[in-house]
Amino acid sequence: MGFNGSRILITGGAGFIGANLAIELISRGAAVTLVDSMIPEYGGNLFNIEAVRSEVTLNISDVRDEYSMKYLIQGQDYLFNLAGQTSHLDSMQNPYPDLEINARAQLSILESCRKYNPDIKIVFASTRQLYGAPQYLPVDEKHPVHPVDVNGINKMAGEWYHLVYNNVYGIRTVVLRLTNTYGPRMRVRDARQTFLGIWVRRIVEGQPFQIFGDGAQLRDYNYVDDLVEAMLMCAVSQKADGQIYNLGALPPVSLKETADILVRAAGVGHYETVPFPPERKAIDIGDYYADYSKIENELGWRPRVALEEGLKRTVEYYRQYGNHYWETP
Amino acid sequence: MGFNGSRILITGGAGFIGANLAIELISRGAAVTLVDSMIPEYGGNLFNIEAVRSEVTLNISDVRDEYSMKYLIQGQDYLFNLAGQTSHLDSMQNPYPDLEINARAQLSILESCRKYNPDIKIVFASTRQLYGAPQYLPVDEKHPVHPVDVNGINKMAGEWYHLVYNNVYGIRTVVLRLTNTYGPRMRVRDARQTFLGIWVRRIVEGQPFQIFGDGAQLRDYNYVDDLVEAMLMCAVSQKADGQIYNLGALPPVSLKETADILVRAAGVGHYETVPFPPERKAIDIGDYYADYSKIENELGWRPRVALEEGLKRTVEYYRQYGNHYWETP
Repeated sequence: MGFNGSRILITGGAGFIGANLAIELISRGAAVTLVDSMIPEYGGNLFNIEAVRSEVTLNISDVRDEYSMKYLIQGQDYLFNLAGQTSHLDSMQNPYPDLEINARAQLSILESCRKYNPDIKIVFASTRQLYGAPQYLPVDEKHPVHPVDVNGINKMAGEWYHLVYNNVYGIRTVVLRLTNTYGPRMRVRDARQTFLGIWVRRIVEGQPFQIFGDGAQLRDYNYVDDLVEAMLMCAVSQKADGQIYNLGALPPVSLKETADILVRAAGVGHYETVPFPPERKAIDIGDYYADYSKIENELGWRPRVALEEGLKRTVEYYRQYGNHYWETP
Repeated sequence: MGFNGSRILITGGAGFIGANLAIELISRGAAVTLVDSMIPEYGGNLFNIEAVRSEVTLNISDVRDEYSMKYLIQGQDYLFNLAGQTSHLDSMQNPYPDLEINARAQLSILESCRKYNPDIKIVFASTRQLYGAPQYLPVDEKHPVHPVDVNGINKMAGEWYHLVYNNVYGIRTVVLRLTNTYGPRMRVRDARQTFLGIWVRRIVEGQPFQIFGDGAQLRDYNYVDDLVEAMLMCAVSQKADGQIYNLGALPPVSLKETADILVRAAGVGHYETVPFPPERKAIDIGDYYADYSKIENELGWRPRVALEEGLKRTVEYYRQYGNHYWETP
């Protein structure tokens, strides 16, 4: 997959996934522009792109800024559209920023592409959250969508704008429905991006971490390098145009097993189980794991990094660089 | 079903469905407030409520007006939430008004209910358009949603906000997915609301009407009185809370048969078949008809007015009052 000389825009580019993607694309010779709003509660962190800082163009702007986006998408070969409001709880407490970022801004990005760069190829980061509480397992792409919170609804709208602009206007888009993604550069200051973030931080700080509920809930996890590979495959594949693909990893792992694997990967650590906070319980989805055979069959993607190995690399990263991700005590 | 003394708010209240619903509720002794923006391209027409003008409270405001809606929902027992942007073509030409009306305004109405009237019961008018081109027929509520245009996406978001506010906050909502509804008080000035509108107008004016394509496409139709009955049933049923129900009528009818039935009902009229305009073809869904057995089994609703009888009543209405629905030549 040659990206040498390709012009690439990444929204959410200073965030967890965007930064890992940028680093990979720079190593392949691409010309990369990162858009990030650097909203403190979200995933952007300039340390994420430290290693490629002189090789990327960093543009601080918000995807809600139609003028900025309209300018920046022009002349790009690929858009990796990763910016989003990801907090389920925030979307319930104040639903409007979530609507503006996850739905309206996506529409305005697509309108700009239609008007000013219809030949661009777009890879959109969607989420398993759209499926809600699974009606069957593993969840394939035919599973009904059933969002359980405002965030899930707005992400669903943002995803479908991409598909409709592909189907009606021929602007090539691919939708990836991500499951739990983890690895270096994830937000670990708190649990806003993934619970694995705060678990890893607690381990590195020598503190116990918490499991909500009995720990029996099943989950699947992708190491960020595997996600990056999926995104690059989608970018270059014609077959992927207009498609929705689940990501995932089998077999699924219970939260308690996940905690045990993390402690093993780190060599230290302990955890405690606590009751579900009620506001989380209200939007909890129970067991979830994906059937990712569609992308495996059509594009040849499969996860390569096992959970224990991925967590080991992750803990090592935060042992080395953790001070850039949380305030030192 | 007693609505005597009930306080009722209807958004889109001067429109086709809202006005028919208001007339029925007034006859049952309800205290009815109608909200309508009276946007000329939409369905509002003050003549629609002529017969009950002195008995309803008419409030001209737009559902995008958060302040107005926040005030008006207070103290109401029921909200029939019918206001919407319904043009598929408009939603593609300028997607933002569609987003603001069909998605954002719905969210703000629900936020107002959550904060100021959590005991209200809401019946929301959604659309079969969410299903897109059917994967099987008849289409039941388990059919995957697959919107084919921006309007379908925003209606989907608006629908799901209602379901999430039911499921998370306990604000009782019911979603009806409407198919083609027709009858007195529909917009007949043009085809913006339903193609049956312009067909009926042409018949009454003694002009030929047009069928796009070969006329073989299957559709189902509900006479507006049947829809009103479904809405009232949903309003009073506890069982309906948090549910999605399809409406419909069996057997389905081809466009050409529909045209023949209309001509028979009117006693006069003729039509011609013309090729699909390309912008309509791009968002066309092929055959559609619903499986409405869920609402039939759970609430006992079924359509009562046969298509020919309904069209007869409709043509009679516009023969008598057509001058209030289009400019006289």
